[in-house]
Amino acid sequence: MERGEKLYEGKAKVLFATEDPNLLIQYFKDDATAFNGVKKGTIADKGVLNNLISTRLFTILEAVGIPTHLEERLSDREQLVHRVNILPVEVVVRNLVAGSMAKRLGMEEGTPLPRPVVEFYHKSDELDDPMVTVDHIEVFGWAKEREIEEMMEYAHRINDVLIAYFANIDIRLVDYKLEFGRLATNPSELVLADEISPDSCRLWDLHTNEKLDKDRFRRDLGGVEEAYQQVVERMGLKR
Amino acid sequence: MERGEKLYEGKAKVLFATEDPNLLIQYFKDDATAFNGVKKGTIADKGVLNNLISTRLFTILEAVGIPTHLEERLSDREQLVHRVNILPVEVVVRNLVAGSMAKRLGMEEGTPLPRPVVEFYHKSDELDDPMVTVDHIEVFGWAKEREIEEMMEYAHRINDVLIAYFANIDIRLVDYKLEFGRLATNPSELVLADEISPDSCRLWDLHTNEKLDKDRFRRDLGGVEEAYQQVVERMGLKR
Repeated sequence: MERGEKLYEGKAKVLFATEDPNLLIQYFKDDATAFNGVKKGTIADKGVLNNLISTRLFTILEAVGIPTHLEERLSDREQLVHRVNILPVEVVVRNLVAGSMAKRLGMEEGTPLPRPVVEFYHKSDELDDPMVTVDHIEVFGWAKEREIEEMMEYAHRINDVLIAYFANIDIRLVDYKLEFGRLATNPSELVLADEISPDSCRLWDLHTNEKLDKDRFRRDLGGVEEAYQQVVERMGLKR
Repeated sequence: MERGEKLYEGKAKVLFATEDPNLLIQYFKDDATAFNGVKKGTIADKGVLNNLISTRLFTILEAVGIPTHLEERLSDREQLVHRVNILPVEVVVRNLVAGSMAKRLGMEEGTPLPRPVVEFYHKSDELDDPMVTVDHIEVFGWAKEREIEEMMEYAHRINDVLIAYFANIDIRLVDYKLEFGRLATNPSELVLADEISPDSCRLWDLHTNEKLDKDRFRRDLGGVEEAYQQVVERMGLKR
């Protein structure tokens, strides 16, 4: 598959057309942003590492029956993916209190939650991705009631799989963001899209709570590349 | 009933003990605050007017079977109310986009909602009353699942009654805040508490959209006392 026209450039990835109108190439960049683009930088080889990590995680999720946009990994920085229309909603799954939840609710980072919590955010750079309720999503037509239920159900199943997967390599899955889209070839089918990587997850070492994710970049903790590399190594992936 | 010890002083009301440990006196002040206490002022006779308005609305809601904390209006500024333990959750019901929803979601004030939206906020001055989801309320134990369902159900029934009541006096019920509490004598019974008044509602003239509520104070629109007085008059209440 050859890269065609550039269709969309996001903060960390670029989407290119291919000769098949229903397949796109998702290209992983090294660019890193935080705080809605206020902080910008580059993490060496991040694109290569995230492509490896996300390909493996999506493959595992496909295997347990979660539909995803992934067709296959093409190269170091490229995935072949099915064209989808992304819903303007981010799904955040939390197992421990961290990040914006800690700030919003005045709680200490690392506080365990008695059960996983699923939150929705409206994708809008202008509005700084506000948290929204299920009611908002329905009323403003960002997703249908059935799709919201499906996202919730997928989120809980994905969480079971990923908690277990990461625990097995001594990583605590603190929280993460998911995006879903409607398949271009069948808009009634919702599939997991975007990526799952240290850019979109909080991953802490199970024993030391050392951060192995983008918080190292956000919070200037240093060792950013090494953290991403560490995740790749624990996952047993080869570049 | 005589006022006993002062038990609690809020921004707009004071609670006093009575000789009956299960009954309190709720005293309505003229103090007005906005933006979590950043803006402070006084609205002449507000306490008297809100007591009249809230007593009438709670009486109507009791009549349709919504349990409330209200026993009776005692005087110009006093109500006799049942002692409750207020849940640390504010229930906001919206029929049109306004206020924080307009800001959060980048929408124009006055945009009609296709159906009423119920939102929950965690009562916390420190945290500036953050919006929360049903999951947060359950997980952090601010209310039980059954209580959340009950609040939702009451909110929708209250909304039906109040929309119709206000439309009848040419007022559009844009949005409002409700608080619920567990009866001290029977903690398994949830009742509507606090107040419903132009302090806690957005009320617009049905024809001109003139604001008849605390937004006149918040936004320095002038005619604040007159707006509250206007609501009392349209409700046919006599001081």
